[in-house]
Amino acid sequence: MIKERLFTPGPVPLPPQVIKALGQQIIHHRTPEFTNIFLQTREKLQKLFNTQRDVLMFASSGTGAMEASIVNFFNEGDKVLVINAGKFGERWRDLGNTFGLNVIDYQIQWGKTYDKEELKKIIEKNPDIKGILVQHSETSTATVHDLKFLAQVSNSLEDCLLVVDGITSVGVYKVYPEEIGVDILITGSQKALMLPPGLSVLYYSEKAEKRLESSKLPKYYFSVKAESKKQAKGQTAYTPAINLIVALNESLDLILNEGLDNLEKRHHILAEMTRQGLQEIGLKLLSESPSNSATAVFTPESLDADVFRKELLKIGIRVAGGQDHLKGKIFRVAHMGYFDYLDIIEVIAAVEITLNKMGYKVELGKGVRKAQEVYLNNI
Amino acid sequence: MIKERLFTPGPVPLPPQVIKALGQQIIHHRTPEFTNIFLQTREKLQKLFNTQRDVLMFASSGTGAMEASIVNFFNEGDKVLVINAGKFGERWRDLGNTFGLNVIDYQIQWGKTYDKEELKKIIEKNPDIKGILVQHSETSTATVHDLKFLAQVSNSLEDCLLVVDGITSVGVYKVYPEEIGVDILITGSQKALMLPPGLSVLYYSEKAEKRLESSKLPKYYFSVKAESKKQAKGQTAYTPAINLIVALNESLDLILNEGLDNLEKRHHILAEMTRQGLQEIGLKLLSESPSNSATAVFTPESLDADVFRKELLKIGIRVAGGQDHLKGKIFRVAHMGYFDYLDIIEVIAAVEITLNKMGYKVELGKGVRKAQEVYLNNI
Repeated sequence: MIKERLFTPGPVPLPPQVIKALGQQIIHHRTPEFTNIFLQTREKLQKLFNTQRDVLMFASSGTGAMEASIVNFFNEGDKVLVINAGKFGERWRDLGNTFGLNVIDYQIQWGKTYDKEELKKIIEKNPDIKGILVQHSETSTATVHDLKFLAQVSNSLEDCLLVVDGITSVGVYKVYPEEIGVDILITGSQKALMLPPGLSVLYYSEKAEKRLESSKLPKYYFSVKAESKKQAKGQTAYTPAINLIVALNESLDLILNEGLDNLEKRHHILAEMTRQGLQEIGLKLLSESPSNSATAVFTPESLDADVFRKELLKIGIRVAGGQDHLKGKIFRVAHMGYFDYLDIIEVIAAVEITLNKMGYKVELGKGVRKAQEVYLNNI
Repeated sequence: MIKERLFTPGPVPLPPQVIKALGQQIIHHRTPEFTNIFLQTREKLQKLFNTQRDVLMFASSGTGAMEASIVNFFNEGDKVLVINAGKFGERWRDLGNTFGLNVIDYQIQWGKTYDKEELKKIIEKNPDIKGILVQHSETSTATVHDLKFLAQVSNSLEDCLLVVDGITSVGVYKVYPEEIGVDILITGSQKALMLPPGLSVLYYSEKAEKRLESSKLPKYYFSVKAESKKQAKGQTAYTPAINLIVALNESLDLILNEGLDNLEKRHHILAEMTRQGLQEIGLKLLSESPSNSATAVFTPESLDADVFRKELLKIGIRVAGGQDHLKGKIFRVAHMGYFDYLDIIEVIAAVEITLNKMGYKVELGKGVRKAQEVYLNNI
């Protein structure tokens, strides 16, 4: 018997409290009981985002909330800048194009983050930009993009919204949109919120709210106005994802009880243990600006990463592979959400064992020792 | 202690097999394990619809699949006829208007179905109709609309799609789109499929498929083309509602093992027991064409239905109220999905008790006896 452990960047393992909440008889959404849970959950999301403003929930995957960010706050022909540094950057671009925005596609080599000077040049040439669209943490390359500088740039423009996909950053970092200057922040349930997929979340700023009236793109299922009106009263415009909301109410307790500072610190340590542990045995990271949600690692050059992943699974560790041109080159280890320190020790030990098993000699325990040191030095 | 029993027309109670499937650790969607479950589920949906064609799943509530029916198969300015006989008929109209269709809003008094002659007249005046949009079972009034005549009408037109919201009819009736002549059939998870909300389903005919290429309405999250390509291979374009799909695989077994003929018969008997039992004690039905998924009943004239519902809840029965002008006038009892005969006996007995408790004398056991007779005469 081998126990399969999920280390993929979404979905991530569910805590027992969440599993228990999911495995319950359904309750009706037009009841005081549900309204109460809904409003509690909403308030906890506001705490997570450190805001008093609207935080909406949609019965959809994260991509649905991305679509909501476009169709509610922009118009056909609006010029927007997409920070395109991976698979999900491409999704912003594709969404923008689908709905007729005028997309400036700022392509960045996968694994890198944006260059401030290049960005400034683009902005100088295009002062009429209506939005900057970015992934806080780009999941395909496990890269984090600094939001503060983007907020500064966005604010220097006449009427520009900073739109942030926080799908693999919320619950990993403290992402406080008002402090940072983010106008639209979205996330999804199956990452650091530790739930199954099917629920997405959207915050929008006062500045973004002003766009609601003038936005003419057709919207129905993802209508922010319709949902906003209802959700403030503990209801939803269309049937909510009842059991995911009940479970979110539980998982937010786990997050808020740990505290956002502790949570951010834990994720930093988990990420550092992974990064330093794997580098210690000679593996190279893909990202120059690695995210604390996941780590993308090259396998040794002559070793196909997908073959390696299959071997790794035999000892009980499921990691993700690379996408597009990185397929077969990298593997990605998640450490967001329901993970602790010994989970990382397992992964590193398993990688050491598997490399040796496949003929790539690395000193057994070397990476593990490094990770142990990182833990002791940081905790 | 009072056990609350859910008799609302969605969500409906979950069978233990479904609860068990939901209360499990998550699995990853890019695994052979999930692909296998996804393809099994897809095949079972095809059996449910008696088709070999594409049956897609979306991570959304039923309204999402309604939106998908519009944005993938129609164009701005397309003339469509909406059979508007209740709250969900209005939703077709609103969706049509939102996306710029030219909606003929055929309004029908709530509780009635369409009039064949009137319908023919509308069609004669508008031979260029591109779609007829209808609820098979209109949940707000518990009314079933005959699809066969609509399919005939639709087929008599040059290029018209019959678009059917089967949210409270699939799993209650045998709804075989190819046999009936339905072009687009959608349903949602939290009704007769016996799941929590958050998953919707869409079938489309060969005739509808031809529209995919010419449809210019923007679509991303609800793109039928993108999903169709992926789902045939056991994947989805965006993250699927993993745990609902795992649970649907279980609930479809319950449905298919019962057999569609038996399932249709059971729902017919449940509905007849409810209708005849409640009429026996002097209550009047709202619908002239009552659906087998739910029964809408007037309370005695001087008794506010919402006050009555609160009293009924005290003995353990939660039913739904009326919407809009029917608020306070009617209550709605669901009997779709995870219900059996003794459930109905409970409801009728509780209604008898509650009416007496509130000063409306009805003979105790009279409605129950009628329901028992219906059972014995039909089983």
